[in-house]
Amino acid sequence: MRTLIFVNLFLLLGAVSYAQKVNKEDSTMLRKIYDTALLEGKSYQWLDYLSNNIGGRLSGSLEAEKAVQYTKEQLDKLGLDKVWLQPVMVPKWTRGIPEYAYIETAPGITSLANVCALGGSVATPEGGLKAQVIEVKGIEDLATLGKEKIQGKIVFYNRPMDPTQIATFSAYGGCVDQRYAGAMEAAKFGAVGVVVRSMNLRKDDFPHTGSMTYGDTPEKNRIPACAISTNGADYLSSALRIQPDLKFFFKQTCKVYPDVQSYNVIGEITGTEFPNKYMIVGGHLDSWDLGDGSHDDGAGCVQSMEVLQIFKKMGYKPRHSIRVVLFMNEENGLRGGTKYAEEAKLKQEDHVFALESDAGGFTPRGFSFDTDDANFTQIKSWEPLFKPYLIHYFEKGGSGADIGPLKNDKIVLAGLRPDSQRYFDYHHAENDTFDAVNKRELELGAATMTSLVYLMDKYGTKTEMSTLKK
Amino acid sequence: MRTLIFVNLFLLLGAVSYAQKVNKEDSTMLRKIYDTALLEGKSYQWLDYLSNNIGGRLSGSLEAEKAVQYTKEQLDKLGLDKVWLQPVMVPKWTRGIPEYAYIETAPGITSLANVCALGGSVATPEGGLKAQVIEVKGIEDLATLGKEKIQGKIVFYNRPMDPTQIATFSAYGGCVDQRYAGAMEAAKFGAVGVVVRSMNLRKDDFPHTGSMTYGDTPEKNRIPACAISTNGADYLSSALRIQPDLKFFFKQTCKVYPDVQSYNVIGEITGTEFPNKYMIVGGHLDSWDLGDGSHDDGAGCVQSMEVLQIFKKMGYKPRHSIRVVLFMNEENGLRGGTKYAEEAKLKQEDHVFALESDAGGFTPRGFSFDTDDANFTQIKSWEPLFKPYLIHYFEKGGSGADIGPLKNDKIVLAGLRPDSQRYFDYHHAENDTFDAVNKRELELGAATMTSLVYLMDKYGTKTEMSTLKK
Repeated sequence: MRTLIFVNLFLLLGAVSYAQKVNKEDSTMLRKIYDTALLEGKSYQWLDYLSNNIGGRLSGSLEAEKAVQYTKEQLDKLGLDKVWLQPVMVPKWTRGIPEYAYIETAPGITSLANVCALGGSVATPEGGLKAQVIEVKGIEDLATLGKEKIQGKIVFYNRPMDPTQIATFSAYGGCVDQRYAGAMEAAKFGAVGVVVRSMNLRKDDFPHTGSMTYGDTPEKNRIPACAISTNGADYLSSALRIQPDLKFFFKQTCKVYPDVQSYNVIGEITGTEFPNKYMIVGGHLDSWDLGDGSHDDGAGCVQSMEVLQIFKKMGYKPRHSIRVVLFMNEENGLRGGTKYAEEAKLKQEDHVFALESDAGGFTPRGFSFDTDDANFTQIKSWEPLFKPYLIHYFEKGGSGADIGPLKNDKIVLAGLRPDSQRYFDYHHAENDTFDAVNKRELELGAATMTSLVYLMDKYGTKTEMSTLKK
Repeated sequence: MRTLIFVNLFLLLGAVSYAQKVNKEDSTMLRKIYDTALLEGKSYQWLDYLSNNIGGRLSGSLEAEKAVQYTKEQLDKLGLDKVWLQPVMVPKWTRGIPEYAYIETAPGITSLANVCALGGSVATPEGGLKAQVIEVKGIEDLATLGKEKIQGKIVFYNRPMDPTQIATFSAYGGCVDQRYAGAMEAAKFGAVGVVVRSMNLRKDDFPHTGSMTYGDTPEKNRIPACAISTNGADYLSSALRIQPDLKFFFKQTCKVYPDVQSYNVIGEITGTEFPNKYMIVGGHLDSWDLGDGSHDDGAGCVQSMEVLQIFKKMGYKPRHSIRVVLFMNEENGLRGGTKYAEEAKLKQEDHVFALESDAGGFTPRGFSFDTDDANFTQIKSWEPLFKPYLIHYFEKGGSGADIGPLKNDKIVLAGLRPDSQRYFDYHHAENDTFDAVNKRELELGAATMTSLVYLMDKYGTKTEMSTLKK
């Protein structure tokens, strides 16, 4: 045991001197990065434009194409080594005319309900759909109720997000199957439509859209699906307790078109030492159409652009090639992320690190990493450098949807983790607008990302370094 | 050195086993506390009432007295062992009719300016005050300029808060002397009035009030002082660059009245083991009058009330007497805090711990402590218990203004530290309203406070325990 103790002590002392060595020059560099973001950042003005001059950027829409042009122009202005568009075919689904819904407790006695079509849903019949409602707390309830009780009815999925989860993304994960697969599953029991409680922890009047799937359900069996606001869901639920045979009406005219051409937007600062090794930062340029996609994921896009802007402003020349990638079509297809990874593989581009910001422009708390122990240990050794900026969260976990397709046994994947308490107040809803984003919180996120990219670039990933030694 | 190493190791192992022992029962208890706050919390509905049914609660106002009555009633309903009002005389300053100000670049050519009187300021002459403006970046500039350049003018203090400070309270601390002492100092150089850039990191149109002092300036030499919004300050500054002899007009009718009777509101759960040892949690019930005092400090009040509500709901019987104290008159006098401490001393009440929440109802990050090393070490040993709730900030530093007068060499003082990025967007301004507070963020703060009070109560402070052993 004594030997072990000494070994541990030497390791400890080694780590301390390493940390101290790291600290001097790196802490100065991080301070400069944060200062540049807070004093000379461009992320907030870019987000203003994306939100207020362009707006919601649904894949295949005119707004999405405007956003491609705008962000490319802005990257061009930064004086990067390369800026280009990567073509990718994306799905085109349109919402149609504004949705309309009501609860009818007796003929002519109705109250309006705030709903929106789920992304990918079919339309209702032209005159709308009216039927009795059966409330469930999840897909698993369908089998218990059976075809007899569901046939001909609208299934109302009303399991709320669990407020006791501190990480609101966990609460989201515990409910989102209702939205994603609820219609497909309810159709198997003869349901004629689906209304889903919005994925929102707050009680308010905004319906929240989001992607859904019909799987391999034949077209004729596909039933329309909408989301209802949390207040609306509570109202419907209480009305059903009093009058179980009430009827719900909704009308939506959404439509799927053939795929259309779109683009990932990419900018690069070519590395001085390892030009053929790539580190990427990114977010997704598409958004849902109800709001302006300011948090989801305008924020992640402008923060990723800011990483390169800060490097340019500081005159920092990275050893690796650093790319910003603004992915198209994360929300309803992931075509951009898939395309980027396919092409990287085809061209045998060696991607060593990828960081995504897609959890809102709130105060950054840290990162989650999808990597092995050796890399994670190296990253954890950088924690003290982030302490002055109140960045404390360095955990293993998921990274980001768009960079997921790059995953292999060499690349380090990471996701920025901002404070998540308010995220689902805005997520996929009409109120995801520029005024909900705080300038400082957005900029601190960009600085935190830049700092991690700087450290990754300077020290390299452990995987990369072990390959170089061989 | 070897001996030292072994001693340290044993200490380390001891700490580990202590932490593990703590962990089992305490982690369960903390989970229950957070669940109770998030599922059965009352803080949000209390804050709704304080904000929307009562509003701004300036000391000596009708609203302040309504708030005293309302919070006492609510505490009465909790079934505490004692609830009472502690009388305290408070200053009464009124804003008068809405302020009015403009910038005049030529006779008849004016633009409106958004200003508000600073708390405690005298009125302008009845017809308002119009004079040339001299811009400075701080009090220290006055001596450099000298009486010659200042005499007969309005001094415009325009040093902005430093955006590179991560802790926004530090940026506030770097500017607030302009607001607090600016008029007193400018009067010495013959200035006729003062306009101060609002203490706000954001560029917007809200003027932010706050306390100021004339010190021992004779009444006839007191000059009126107002705050101008950050956008207004930038506009005035740029206009002055083009036309240094422009004139600034402002009119305010504020007035000081004789002191009036008010109250601290106090509730207590009497301790089972140490009924004569007190642990207090509190915030201040008064606020400025422009907004509804929702973040400052309605949030701190309802979070403090929630601590006792949670204990009652859980059936937890504390060993020490736990008091909630809603202090009157923090903003312009600190009379409530001073009174509470005076009376505690008079009655020889042994206060062992005091925790204040007065930094907004934002996501909690941790606490700062005003205490000695022994107590701080014990508190740091509890850090792992808070990790699941993303509470990571345990540092020495200030605590809270209201509990400051209790300071002695035995009491442990602490302040809740929420995320500070948005605080000064609302501080002392018209937009400090209920809608700026997020329910979950508020409740998480209350749960975090309750958790610390629970641990303090269970283990006692180090100072207290060392006294008991003797």
